[in-house]
Amino acid sequence: MTDQGPLLIRGGKVVNDDRIFDADVFVDKGIIQAVGPDLAVPEGAFVIDAAGKYVMPGGIDTHTHMQLPFMGTAAIDDFYWGTRAALAGGTTMIIDFVLPQRGESLLDAYSKWRNWADEKVCCDYGFHVGVTWWSEQVKQEMAELVKDKGVNSFKMFMAYKDTWQLLDEDLLKAFTQCKAIGALAQVHAENGDVIKEMGNRMLAAGITGPEGHALCRPEEVEAEATNRACVLANQVGCPLYIVHVMSRAAADVVSAKRRQGHVVYGEPVAAGLGTDGTHYWSTCWRHAAAHVMGPPLRPDPSTPAYLMDMLANNDLQCTGTDNCTFTSEQKALGKGDFTKIPNGVNGVEDRMSIIWERGVCSGKMDPRRFVAVTSTSAAKIFNIYPRKGVIAVGSDADLIVWNGETSRVISASTHHQRCDFNVFEGQTVRGVAEWVVSRGRVCVRQGQVEAVRAAGRFVPTPGYSPEVYLRVQQRDKTRTPHAVDRSES
Amino acid sequence: MTDQGPLLIRGGKVVNDDRIFDADVFVDKGIIQAVGPDLAVPEGAFVIDAAGKYVMPGGIDTHTHMQLPFMGTAAIDDFYWGTRAALAGGTTMIIDFVLPQRGESLLDAYSKWRNWADEKVCCDYGFHVGVTWWSEQVKQEMAELVKDKGVNSFKMFMAYKDTWQLLDEDLLKAFTQCKAIGALAQVHAENGDVIKEMGNRMLAAGITGPEGHALCRPEEVEAEATNRACVLANQVGCPLYIVHVMSRAAADVVSAKRRQGHVVYGEPVAAGLGTDGTHYWSTCWRHAAAHVMGPPLRPDPSTPAYLMDMLANNDLQCTGTDNCTFTSEQKALGKGDFTKIPNGVNGVEDRMSIIWERGVCSGKMDPRRFVAVTSTSAAKIFNIYPRKGVIAVGSDADLIVWNGETSRVISASTHHQRCDFNVFEGQTVRGVAEWVVSRGRVCVRQGQVEAVRAAGRFVPTPGYSPEVYLRVQQRDKTRTPHAVDRSES
Amino acid sequence: MTDQGPLLIRGGKVVNDDRIFDADVFVDKGIIQAVGPDLAVPEGAFVIDAAGKYVMPGGIDTHTHMQLPFMGTAAIDDFYWGTRAALAGGTTMIIDFVLPQRGESLLDAYSKWRNWADEKVCCDYGFHVGVTWWSEQVKQEMAELVKDKGVNSFKMFMAYKDTWQLLDEDLLKAFTQCKAIGALAQVHAENGDVIKEMGNRMLAAGITGPEGHALCRPEEVEAEATNRACVLANQVGCPLYIVHVMSRAAADVVSAKRRQGHVVYGEPVAAGLGTDGTHYWSTCWRHAAAHVMGPPLRPDPSTPAYLMDMLANNDLQCTGTDNCTFTSEQKALGKGDFTKIPNGVNGVEDRMSIIWERGVCSGKMDPRRFVAVTSTSAAKIFNIYPRKGVIAVGSDADLIVWNGETSRVISASTHHQRCDFNVFEGQTVRGVAEWVVSRGRVCVRQGQVEAVRAAGRFVPTPGYSPEVYLRVQQRDKTRTPHAVDRSES
Amino acid sequence: MTDQGPLLIRGGKVVNDDRIFDADVFVDKGIIQAVGPDLAVPEGAFVIDAAGKYVMPGGIDTHTHMQLPFMGTAAIDDFYWGTRAALAGGTTMIIDFVLPQRGESLLDAYSKWRNWADEKVCCDYGFHVGVTWWSEQVKQEMAELVKDKGVNSFKMFMAYKDTWQLLDEDLLKAFTQCKAIGALAQVHAENGDVIKEMGNRMLAAGITGPEGHALCRPEEVEAEATNRACVLANQVGCPLYIVHVMSRAAADVVSAKRRQGHVVYGEPVAAGLGTDGTHYWSTCWRHAAAHVMGPPLRPDPSTPAYLMDMLANNDLQCTGTDNCTFTSEQKALGKGDFTKIPNGVNGVEDRMSIIWERGVCSGKMDPRRFVAVTSTSAAKIFNIYPRKGVIAVGSDADLIVWNGETSRVISASTHHQRCDFNVFEGQTVRGVAEWVVSRGRVCVRQGQVEAVRAAGRFVPTPGYSPEVYLRVQQRDKTRTPHAVDRSES
Repeated sequence: MTDQGPLLIRGGKVVNDDRIFDADVFVDKGIIQAVGPDLAVPEGAFVIDAAGKYVMPGGIDTHTHMQLPFMGTAAIDDFYWGTRAALAGGTTMIIDFVLPQRGESLLDAYSKWRNWADEKVCCDYGFHVGVTWWSEQVKQEMAELVKDKGVNSFKMFMAYKDTWQLLDEDLLKAFTQCKAIGALAQVHAENGDVIKEMGNRMLAAGITGPEGHALCRPEEVEAEATNRACVLANQVGCPLYIVHVMSRAAADVVSAKRRQGHVVYGEPVAAGLGTDGTHYWSTCWRHAAAHVMGPPLRPDPSTPAYLMDMLANNDLQCTGTDNCTFTSEQKALGKGDFTKIPNGVNGVEDRMSIIWERGVCSGKMDPRRFVAVTSTSAAKIFNIYPRKGVIAVGSDADLIVWNGETSRVISASTHHQRCDFNVFEGQTVRGVAEWVVSRGRVCVRQGQVEAVRAAGRFVPTPGYSPEVYLRVQQRDKTRTPHAVDRSES
Repeated sequence: MTDQGPLLIRGGKVVNDDRIFDADVFVDKGIIQAVGPDLAVPEGAFVIDAAGKYVMPGGIDTHTHMQLPFMGTAAIDDFYWGTRAALAGGTTMIIDFVLPQRGESLLDAYSKWRNWADEKVCCDYGFHVGVTWWSEQVKQEMAELVKDKGVNSFKMFMAYKDTWQLLDEDLLKAFTQCKAIGALAQVHAENGDVIKEMGNRMLAAGITGPEGHALCRPEEVEAEATNRACVLANQVGCPLYIVHVMSRAAADVVSAKRRQGHVVYGEPVAAGLGTDGTHYWSTCWRHAAAHVMGPPLRPDPSTPAYLMDMLANNDLQCTGTDNCTFTSEQKALGKGDFTKIPNGVNGVEDRMSIIWERGVCSGKMDPRRFVAVTSTSAAKIFNIYPRKGVIAVGSDADLIVWNGETSRVISASTHHQRCDFNVFEGQTVRGVAEWVVSRGRVCVRQGQVEAVRAAGRFVPTPGYSPEVYLRVQQRDKTRTPHAVDRSES
Repeated sequence: MTDQGPLLIRGGKVVNDDRIFDADVFVDKGIIQAVGPDLAVPEGAFVIDAAGKYVMPGGIDTHTHMQLPFMGTAAIDDFYWGTRAALAGGTTMIIDFVLPQRGESLLDAYSKWRNWADEKVCCDYGFHVGVTWWSEQVKQEMAELVKDKGVNSFKMFMAYKDTWQLLDEDLLKAFTQCKAIGALAQVHAENGDVIKEMGNRMLAAGITGPEGHALCRPEEVEAEATNRACVLANQVGCPLYIVHVMSRAAADVVSAKRRQGHVVYGEPVAAGLGTDGTHYWSTCWRHAAAHVMGPPLRPDPSTPAYLMDMLANNDLQCTGTDNCTFTSEQKALGKGDFTKIPNGVNGVEDRMSIIWERGVCSGKMDPRRFVAVTSTSAAKIFNIYPRKGVIAVGSDADLIVWNGETSRVISASTHHQRCDFNVFEGQTVRGVAEWVVSRGRVCVRQGQVEAVRAAGRFVPTPGYSPEVYLRVQQRDKTRTPHAVDRSES
Repeated sequence: MTDQGPLLIRGGKVVNDDRIFDADVFVDKGIIQAVGPDLAVPEGAFVIDAAGKYVMPGGIDTHTHMQLPFMGTAAIDDFYWGTRAALAGGTTMIIDFVLPQRGESLLDAYSKWRNWADEKVCCDYGFHVGVTWWSEQVKQEMAELVKDKGVNSFKMFMAYKDTWQLLDEDLLKAFTQCKAIGALAQVHAENGDVIKEMGNRMLAAGITGPEGHALCRPEEVEAEATNRACVLANQVGCPLYIVHVMSRAAADVVSAKRRQGHVVYGEPVAAGLGTDGTHYWSTCWRHAAAHVMGPPLRPDPSTPAYLMDMLANNDLQCTGTDNCTFTSEQKALGKGDFTKIPNGVNGVEDRMSIIWERGVCSGKMDPRRFVAVTSTSAAKIFNIYPRKGVIAVGSDADLIVWNGETSRVISASTHHQRCDFNVFEGQTVRGVAEWVVSRGRVCVRQGQVEAVRAAGRFVPTPGYSPEVYLRVQQRDKTRTPHAVDRSES
């Protein structure tokens, strides 16, 4: 396929996070060139009829793990299949994770991941980098990644004891460095010591199936780590982002800390918003195992609706998927020992529909908030706004024509991902991306995917995001503690 | 003064609620014509140098009572002096209240207020209308006000027993009608029955001074009514706006209800954000009485900082002042009986500075959020966005050049209001509106006020504000209760 | 049956609310004469072998409505059948409600109820009196009831608009009077204005079945009134008791207010602890209608466990049943209009077992707390401790021999109540009262009921209960507001 | 002084945690022999006139560190002076801490402490034992201490990095062992990693005075550890006791966890209830340093009243002092480096008065609750009830005659402790122990102390306290997770 020529999207309702208005959108050279009513059709422009549809910024999935080497195997959706599926669902950018092994250079890992991605991605992408161990070298490389490599966020693990887990002492060091270089600290928030201990107990008690995965790490284990991360980050003045907020209790922590003034963000994921952990008790092992992810889905069935309420109210801010897919065959590595089931589920394709159905159609959020939580807030937090996340002149032409009334039934038999299971199987969702435009190129045409390998670009995410750091920097000026002057006494 | 010609505001940092960026702003015919870097100076344009300054949307004060006839006297700041003072402080629009007497036609009162305002206002303004009694006529007039008179919000009083107070039965009717006509219900949330009873007790106990005002209506009395209003409105599906949220407990209610999904908004006021109720215990009667407003300022000194935290976190959304000023002589009507002290304080001039100093300089919010809480959110809620509340092409040229570093000391001796007391007396605040432009006209020039009587215009606020009603309407579609089919049994 | 002779209960584990200990209990003349290890068998004493069983104070049901004339009919369990059923389940005292009609003398109603009860009761009983209207006469009669009639608690209704409902103004008067006479104010906490309005809407929408009962008064309607009652009572310094706390939200209010220092108590009832409101959606009208009570059972199925947690933690204090039973034929009065279904369910017989099964067997509370919530706390609050509520020398010989391991299946086909439905139908509960002794008389013998009509006595409940009033009186001394001395200024 | 003969305390109001009643109390041989009205005066009995006074169980201070070797010095109040001061204030039992060094045998440390105490104590005492490191030996010795040495509680430190701090992995082991042996786990809840990091930052910023102590460990650092300890303990089913709850935030955690069903207890201390952390900013170093304790007193001046509210409402249960006193000379070891100021304040003498004044006189709790929080609850939790904590026949004759109206002014110049500073200096408190009887011996006679060295006895605290373990054991029966049976699928 050759480069796309000019495009005119005509007659739709443009939705940004601040308002909805009737306008045409003209795109050329990958950039939005005009937004307004009754635009003339430029010569040679391909015209998309958006009458009765919403025209919205393409989604940004803040959390994916394409082709991640993990637990003795690798995620089946690689950067090609994964981004292709993303586009199919209306997502035009993903932010994936570079995850070095303990002892591995962050820069080396970054290069490896860049190579993996650049040759495959069908849409734009960015990177978070994992800080999975601590050393002076790690510290230096974090600075270099921010300065030269377009990375502005680092994830630390509070779980995965004996591999990626950092204890509080090192968390404090990582947070301190994040702040020093204008980066956003991220955490996987679960108490790894508890998980290990309770996991061993479950196995010892003969609970070897997927229900053991949920039983050994109940939601208070997530909430504890979430709270601890908030306190540690706040103490050293570092902004914080909680990846995959999976439980009511963890969401409550984020909400409470924000109200206390912490600079903290919470990211629910599609699976957490769209299904629940009762599946771990399925008598079908394959079915149960297919839902294994960390932190687990929660058995409390009120969880998804609660997380959506929090997202609607900006207690949580943006949404990812933790998309990290394994086939049933891969999942079967954990047969007889749930601690060996590769962790991960799908989501990158269905995230937008799940949120539309359960968030917008339910009346919890209006389409503006939908745009905010699927796209704009992520762009702001990761400092690529207004390049991404808004339909405005000068922005990247990442946009979708969204039919908010049409419904589809989610199924592994029809989805565009390579995994053979879909955690939303059978759900009827409204909201379909009929047209998806990535950097001005039509990638979904009337529902048909036309993604192009390697057409995507790496999008650098600059440090000192204003959304994140304006308050931090102001606080540094005004909240420095002072010694009491006791010279007189 | 003749009409203003074209204006170029050059070299500033433009702040909208979504981002900050370097740009010039060109204004002509009362409208923003261009926003961008390095704009050419159009012929005849007056150039304002904004280098090192912020260029922001003018403030919108959501809650004023200019020249209100009240408690046997009338507020001393009328629509001229009041709007002039507003401009002096960087506010370019006020929303005042039409308050009919019991039995008075709402339309008649509206006309009276329009006349009062139109001949005096120096800046744009809008109206909320009070529903101070209930009848079929009131109901009809509400509809007419929305349809033909540019009113989209109605305030009901839960306090002021025997005059304006509505009991639950009538509140339900008023909320029901608000919803039926696409209006936003507002409440003054205090339990008037308690206030009357406790007021009598205080007087009987010989507590006749201003401290009695605080003692007879402590914060749980406000929180109770806030909660009740939320529940009543939610039951009938009506969106709600709590005017003057004055206490931690009331703010907590709004925050909690929003998290539960209520469509509810909370408005703190300048006085509540900038001072506290310990003044009621001043041994100087005049000083104490000058702070009397309803609901009262709270004796808990942590209140202002708490309300600011809530405002920063969008638990509360926009800010007014309840500006309703009386001279010391007028306040003296309540000498010997605090229930007769005219209720009201200043704020319209100082609101922006108070929030800048305590919100932005403290690091609680960044300048984008400052713009949101002083202007944009109000414009969205009251459905005049993007005409107001944003610096964008096509918007009204209501904007300010804001020096965020300069400080001034607030004082009744220098303020532009006619009252002889200022509740922020002596406070040093950063943030000064060096230039204020209203509908393209310079009204403050390097700090000097050049307001023009009757130069302002009434701004109609249309019904069915998308910010407010998109969710409400969607819920009506999906949350209708259904009868159980028992035909078989 | 003649008077019981001396009794020795031997070898059991005595459970009081403070501890569990091995002891024999010797009873004579209706009084506990000795408690201790290895008591000698007095001559002529009947010996009950309690080995392996708990010996506990008989239950006190704080909330019953025997033979209540209500909604055009009368409760089918009268004071005979009702107290007989109480004994069958291990409850040895009930506190019923005298409920005057609007305009009726409280004293007259009291006399009427005393007559009804005295000739029928099989166990001891006391009375709360309803304040269903307000006048100077009512106020005087309240004082007389406390002074001369053994009443120390008055219930006000915030629901039942147009019949029993008091508005805030009268609630304040009733609370003020309660405090003046040392009584405990009680409220039925639901917003009657909302219920009426929403009830009409449901009927208008064609929702005429029992689900309409739940839909027109969701839990926030209960929580609102609960909160309002707390605030009103607190403002006038009156202690408060919330009857039938039915929802999570209402329980949260009580819990929060207690933590703020309010003198407030909350009473869940057996039905709320043992079943839920999903039954209202049963396609069997008879089944659904049988669960109709006010406030309704809650459709949130996590409610019973939550209320039990709150009860275990003393966020709620004692337990009643709101036992007010109607046959299916009586319930059918509301066929076609749920507002006409007589409100009320069973509970007096099964309360103890429900709490044992779901509270004790679940590990939420230990047997000491079981005794507290079923008996001792009620005795303390209503000022009949240590006469009731404890196994101690000198106390009334109201006690039970409780088998904590045996289970039974609850069913209308086997229960001792006259209603033809049991809301706990089919539930298996552990905890059976094998022996029940009321005032020293064996009323249940190895599970067989031997109740005697008119054997019970009215137990006066004196005013100024120390549990309730010690703090109130101390606060009156130290929390009186004072006027600011402004003589100098 | 020779052994005391029989004693009759006549005419007082006996206060237990369940009720107040007029009764005489007869004591002989160290035991309460009779409680009742109008007891005859036995021959030879010494009669104490308690008319108009309260007769209450002597206080139990759950947390002291007499003569603790700490931070290069040793607490100045040893077991003689410390228990003498305890008696002076109405406390008749202390529970002190055996604190082994890292690597030291717990049994050896226990023996050392027993020797220190036995030869000096003027009143009864018990021991908690610190688990300051972890090994198989420690685990075994814990079991032996419970089995043979009368210890039922073990304290783990989450602070004091590099010395006593245990990380989560070892905390889990310690909790697991506590549960296995029927002991109560206790924690000092502060995040030691944060404290170390922030302490270094303060010193680096030139903040070397006592304010640095508060600044490097703000209340969220305490709340974090409190929450983490609760979660860890709950996960392994171990009951938990939080020593010295010092902040609103930490108290909120305990309260919330209890409501969720955790078996957890919270202990505020006299200093936290009676003063606050604003003193750290005193310009007098000696004054500021005298308040240094860990966790620190909180600068939020609303803290003491809040903690008292929580104590009144049983969100917190019993009270200690963390009495660990150093002279100004000893405190001066930290001149120039706040991390070297010996941590500790007084309290053992004044605890009862502080709680009486601020808890009872304020109307927050009545005398019954006063007895509960100063004595009975501790006796129940540590399994020495009803031997201690109640005035009942058969209980130890530890009791006080309390004048609730008399006031005294607390001062280092008059107190009975050896430290030269009192953190309550200058406070006027009501509540004076006019007579104090320890094991039947008069130790305070009309306010004059007559304590006797070595007259006290070690009181073994048996394992499996019913208050603590009845629920734990029941839960073990009913809450065991089960594997899903997938044999069919």
